[in-house]
Amino acid sequence: MLLTVQWKDDSLLLIDQTKLPTKLSYVYCKSYQDVAAAIKQMIVRGAPAIGVAAAFGLVLAARRSNSRNIGSLLRDINKAYNIIRATRPTAINLQWGLDRLMKKIQNIQSVSKVKEIMLDEAIQMAEEDIFINRSMGSIGEILLSDGDTILTHCNAGSLATVAYGTALGVIRSAKESETRPVMQGSRLTAFELQYDNIDISLIPDTAVGYLMTKGGIKHVIVGADRILNTGHVFNKIGTYQIAVLAKCHNIPFYVAAPLSSFDLKNDIDDIVIEERSKEEVTKIGKKNIAPTNIKVINPSFDITPPDLITSIITEKGIISPPYKTNIKIMMNTK
Amino acid sequence: MLLTVQWKDDSLLLIDQTKLPTKLSYVYCKSYQDVAAAIKQMIVRGAPAIGVAAAFGLVLAARRSNSRNIGSLLRDINKAYNIIRATRPTAINLQWGLDRLMKKIQNIQSVSKVKEIMLDEAIQMAEEDIFINRSMGSIGEILLSDGDTILTHCNAGSLATVAYGTALGVIRSAKESETRPVMQGSRLTAFELQYDNIDISLIPDTAVGYLMTKGGIKHVIVGADRILNTGHVFNKIGTYQIAVLAKCHNIPFYVAAPLSSFDLKNDIDDIVIEERSKEEVTKIGKKNIAPTNIKVINPSFDITPPDLITSIITEKGIISPPYKTNIKIMMNTK
Repeated sequence: MLLTVQWKDDSLLLIDQTKLPTKLSYVYCKSYQDVAAAIKQMIVRGAPAIGVAAAFGLVLAARRSNSRNIGSLLRDINKAYNIIRATRPTAINLQWGLDRLMKKIQNIQSVSKVKEIMLDEAIQMAEEDIFINRSMGSIGEILLSDGDTILTHCNAGSLATVAYGTALGVIRSAKESETRPVMQGSRLTAFELQYDNIDISLIPDTAVGYLMTKGGIKHVIVGADRILNTGHVFNKIGTYQIAVLAKCHNIPFYVAAPLSSFDLKNDIDDIVIEERSKEEVTKIGKKNIAPTNIKVINPSFDITPPDLITSIITEKGIISPPYKTNIKIMMNTK
Repeated sequence: MLLTVQWKDDSLLLIDQTKLPTKLSYVYCKSYQDVAAAIKQMIVRGAPAIGVAAAFGLVLAARRSNSRNIGSLLRDINKAYNIIRATRPTAINLQWGLDRLMKKIQNIQSVSKVKEIMLDEAIQMAEEDIFINRSMGSIGEILLSDGDTILTHCNAGSLATVAYGTALGVIRSAKESETRPVMQGSRLTAFELQYDNIDISLIPDTAVGYLMTKGGIKHVIVGADRILNTGHVFNKIGTYQIAVLAKCHNIPFYVAAPLSSFDLKNDIDDIVIEERSKEEVTKIGKKNIAPTNIKVINPSFDITPPDLITSIITEKGIISPPYKTNIKIMMNTK
C-alpha cells in the first residue's frame, strides 16, 4: 500500500508527488517549516492528505520547540499554526487538521504532555483517514455496477489521502482526465490506478464531452477540497465543467469526501479560490508551451453547485439532495 | 503579415508550426513527399492552410515529374493525390484543395500547360484564402461589440490559413483555451494574437466553464475542419464541450469557416475522426507527464451538433438556423 503521509524517525515522511510518475521518491520533513514548504510546493497535495500533513507539521513545531513552560510552547505552536494555515487557502482539511490538534491540547498544562498528546492525535488522524476511505469505498460501491466505467478528474486516490483514496477504492475500470495544468490526473491518478492494476485510460481534458456522447462513461466520481452546507463543492479546476457535461448527458455525478471536508460555517463568497502561477500553464518542466510573456488566468479550483451533484459519498453514508437539510443531518449523526 | 503558406523559389515555403512559439522558422518543401510529410507532422495545420498546402503539393508533383506525355504526367499527379489525400482524414479542405486543381486540368492535353495551370490555380487559391478571411472578418464583426471578450479554442487564426485567419481578424480582446494535447491554443493562437497586439489571456482547458460562470466571456468563436449539410461541425477536440458550456451559460457560440470547409455529400458516420498518437498526451517534448505504459484515448476532433451553434460565419455571409435549408441557400449564392 502506498503511504502518502507517515510518521517515521521522529519526522514526517512524504511521497514527493512532484516527482511522479517518473520517480517514486520520499521526502523527510524534520521541521514545521519543511511541512509548510512541502504543502506549498505540492510535494503533498489532496485535501485529506494536506489535513493530516498539517497536523504533523504542528507536532513537529511542538517537538522541536525548546520551550520549558506551556505559554512559550503554545506561542511556538501558534506561530507554526499561522504559517502552515497560510500555505494554501481553499482546502478546508488544512484548517480542520490544525484545529483538531489545537482543540485536543487546549486544557493541557504540561509541556511534555502536550507534545505526547499531539503526536498521538496526529497518528490517530492518519489511521482514521485510511479507515474513513475504506468506509467511503464500501459505501460508494452500491452506486456502481460491475464493469461500469467511471470518469474521474484530478486525483482523489490514495495520493490525495494517507492511503486508499476517497472513492477510487471501488473502481475497477476508469477513464481519467489529465487535469491541466498540474496534470495530477495524468501524473498521479494514472500512476496509482495502474499500480493497483485497474484498467485505466487517460483522456485529454478536451475529450471529456466527446467521450460522454459515445456512451463510454457510466458515472463520474470526483473528490472535494471543501463542501459548504448548501452542497456547493470546491474542487480542482475543471470539476464544474465536467459536472455540467455529466448533467447534459444524463450521467450521474458523485462527490466522494470525508466529513472533514465539510465547512458548515462559511458562505460561498468567504472562500478564496487559489490563483496559481502562470508558469504552471506556460511551461512543462523547463519547456515553454506558450509565449513567455503571455497573460494567464490560472484558478486552481472551481465551484460545482448542488443541482449538478447526484449525491455525496461520505464515510458515514450517502448524502442525497436536498443538501442543506441532509448535510446537517449527516454531520450530526454519531 | 505572417504568411503560413507561400510559393517561393519553385518550392512551397511553410512556417514550421511545431517550433512555435519558441522559434519562428520556415521549412522548404521541394517535393510532394515533403508536403505530405509536413501535413502529417503538423508543420502546417488548420483546415484552410492544409487545403492550399495540399494543392501546392500537387503542383510540386507535376513540376518535378519527368514525364513527357500527358498520360504519364497524370499518373504521377494521381499518385501524389492519393498520398497527400491520405495524410489526415478529418479536414475536408485537404480534399477540396486537391480536387480543385484536378478539375482545373481535366481537359488539358499539354504537359507544360498542365504544369502552368496548376501553379497559377494554387497561387490563386492562396490569394483567395486571404481575401476570404478578410471577408469573414468584416462579416463576423457585426456580431460583436467594442470591448467584448471572445473565447476561442485551438487555432483559427492566420496560422490555420494562408494569412489573416478565419475570424480572429475582428477580435480585439480574447481568452484562449490552451487546447490539449497539442497545445495549438497556447502555442499558436497566443503567439499570433500577441504578435498582432491583441489583449489575450491564456486559460487552461479545465477553466472554461468556471470563467463562463464569472461572466468574463461574451462570445465563443471557433473554426471548423468540416461542416456537414446538417450543420454538424467537426473541429478540434474540446470544441463540443465548449459549445455545451456556452449553451448552458447563454453565451453565443459561432463557427467561422470558408465555404471550402463545407461537405454537402457525406453523412456524419462517413467521417473518420482521426485518432492520434498516445505520446501527444503522455509527453511534452521529451518529458513524460504520465506513466509511459498507460492506455490513452486521443481523438483529434469532435462533432458539435447544430442546436449548439448560434450561427456560422462564412465569406459570403452569416448562416443562421435552420442550417439544412440555409447552408444549401448560401452554397448556391453566387
